[in-house]
Amino acid sequence: MSRSALVVIDMINTYGHPDADALVPSVRDALPRIVDLIGRARNDGVPVIYVNDNFGEWRSHHGEIIETTLSGPHSDLVEPVLPDDDSLFVVKARHSIFYETPLSYLLSQLDVDRVVLCGQVTEQCVLYSALDAHIRHLDVTVPDDAVAHIHQDLAQAALRMMERNMNASIRKAASVVF
Amino acid sequence: MSRSALVVIDMINTYGHPDADALVPSVRDALPRIVDLIGRARNDGVPVIYVNDNFGEWRSHHGEIIETTLSGPHSDLVEPVLPDDDSLFVVKARHSIFYETPLSYLLSQLDVDRVVLCGQVTEQCVLYSALDAHIRHLDVTVPDDAVAHIHQDLAQAALRMMERNMNASIRKAASVVF
Amino acid sequence: MSRSALVVIDMINTYGHPDADALVPSVRDALPRIVDLIGRARNDGVPVIYVNDNFGEWRSHHGEIIETTLSGPHSDLVEPVLPDDDSLFVVKARHSIFYETPLSYLLSQLDVDRVVLCGQVTEQCVLYSALDAHIRHLDVTVPDDAVAHIHQDLAQAALRMMERNMNASIRKAASVVF
Amino acid sequence: MSRSALVVIDMINTYGHPDADALVPSVRDALPRIVDLIGRARNDGVPVIYVNDNFGEWRSHHGEIIETTLSGPHSDLVEPVLPDDDSLFVVKARHSIFYETPLSYLLSQLDVDRVVLCGQVTEQCVLYSALDAHIRHLDVTVPDDAVAHIHQDLAQAALRMMERNMNASIRKAASVVF
Repeated sequence: MSRSALVVIDMINTYGHPDADALVPSVRDALPRIVDLIGRARNDGVPVIYVNDNFGEWRSHHGEIIETTLSGPHSDLVEPVLPDDDSLFVVKARHSIFYETPLSYLLSQLDVDRVVLCGQVTEQCVLYSALDAHIRHLDVTVPDDAVAHIHQDLAQAALRMMERNMNASIRKAASVVF
Repeated sequence: MSRSALVVIDMINTYGHPDADALVPSVRDALPRIVDLIGRARNDGVPVIYVNDNFGEWRSHHGEIIETTLSGPHSDLVEPVLPDDDSLFVVKARHSIFYETPLSYLLSQLDVDRVVLCGQVTEQCVLYSALDAHIRHLDVTVPDDAVAHIHQDLAQAALRMMERNMNASIRKAASVVF
Repeated sequence: MSRSALVVIDMINTYGHPDADALVPSVRDALPRIVDLIGRARNDGVPVIYVNDNFGEWRSHHGEIIETTLSGPHSDLVEPVLPDDDSLFVVKARHSIFYETPLSYLLSQLDVDRVVLCGQVTEQCVLYSALDAHIRHLDVTVPDDAVAHIHQDLAQAALRMMERNMNASIRKAASVVF
Repeated sequence: MSRSALVVIDMINTYGHPDADALVPSVRDALPRIVDLIGRARNDGVPVIYVNDNFGEWRSHHGEIIETTLSGPHSDLVEPVLPDDDSLFVVKARHSIFYETPLSYLLSQLDVDRVVLCGQVTEQCVLYSALDAHIRHLDVTVPDDAVAHIHQDLAQAALRMMERNMNASIRKAASVVF
């Protein structure tokens, strides 16, 4: 039987980068569905794995990442999706959630063979992560109303690439069954 | 010019595994040199990077790893080598410090081209890490009195393999210049 | 100084897959520019590296790949771009030209820090390869009239992703300077 | 059920490197068992996969590797173990048979979950390959009379490391059951 994990990508975020103006409204749109997915996964005992850039911080307490984002101007986008005591947390460098991270190992320990990807950015990290998951023989589901983009047209193309070329299931968050 | 980092391997440890009886005395022997290397690196502004197993913990606060090891029976082996506020910390799955970790990326960000490896276990993770560093075109130094083993003869063979086949500099901790 | 290599992707091809009907006309369009790029690279002493799927053939003589494609119905698309005695040849599994291939090692041996990508498929292997080259700190140039696609709109989006998010130089083949 | 493959490491060799004097007698010793393993695997329909350095040759016809080694002074060590038409052939850069090669992909295509490693060098490529196979959750068997070394003591230590730390089955070639 298939076992799923919910992967929350780059939502612990300061939104300090140059594309933030284009990104923030899209995150705000997607946020309620991301919150809902996290809540349902927690209720169902589905692992919730945060995979997140570390903004150059590699200190011994990565609580720092959370504190930094909560004290910034966009804490309203972070607070509703904070990890809880059961959340798993993997720090990535940049790019895909799999590139030079222990995520593959963690998923195999958890016996997970399907990842549900939510978060940001659809046409960047979400796309690259879907590709890397597909290469690793994992099933991929992407709720297209729970991912946020910088460029809408590139995001639409990225979702079609995931569906066509990476065998991903693209659907609404409400219809995701864990 | 070469820039060095000190890598402290698996020293934040509960020593709960089956080989601990053989390992603990060797760690106790190596500990003063590891403490000294960490102290000198901090004084010289050399990055100190802890790369550590996470004992199956992938929680959002990896301070948990430290708390768990400090409350165990071998806290005396952990307390002298705790990370400070400037320490960098990378969680590895198991095996090499590079395998599915962001260490390569972190080292390139820091412009480091030479790693000094200390910690444990000489004939396992230290050996595999020296190999992976060599493959990645990094210079490798291993102070043989600042690494701990389970089997002395395998550790000796491992150090010779590092020197002969991975171009590592094997020397005493006191003679390591950062 | 930057040293370039020309990478010819998946052009030794049987065109036996389901998308061939959409792909073949686009390959036919791009072919003259690919031929021209190969010719100019050879004249200039620029390494020409074929990276190619092996169609499930892992025999000891990979001349088999070439023979198979030359005896198929689309040999006219293969014959003009055949490797010569100086060509380098790397077999890939599928996906990116870097994924589980020795290409990184080969490029570092050749001291190459810039790859010019031509061939197919723009919105699949070319896109994934541009990403993997960018992650590996290589400069990427993609002549958009020397790559072939299955879906034109996805190809356009892929080229914009390469330019925006992977720092690739997108230009006409005629303006590529090695 | 477990499916095996026989992996023949670096036996297509010019023996032109500095350690050849120490290596050649050990290869000569191991050769009859390697020949026997290859013969039995072929008879049993077990995949025989050559993974081999390419001596800097990346030409389009890797038959070149074979021709070069056959025309050298140690062709007697190469001729008995040549690939046949059913042999699979993977070129590696250096180091492990898995490092930047498509071997993982090939093994998964063949549904292989156990590798029998023979060839050279016990304390180098064979050791690194056993580690990488173990990390990838493959079972590993190493017939200790069908692998060749440069340093006997390091080879003995390497075999013990494989057995203890990489869960490898170390046995005589005659007792290997595919």
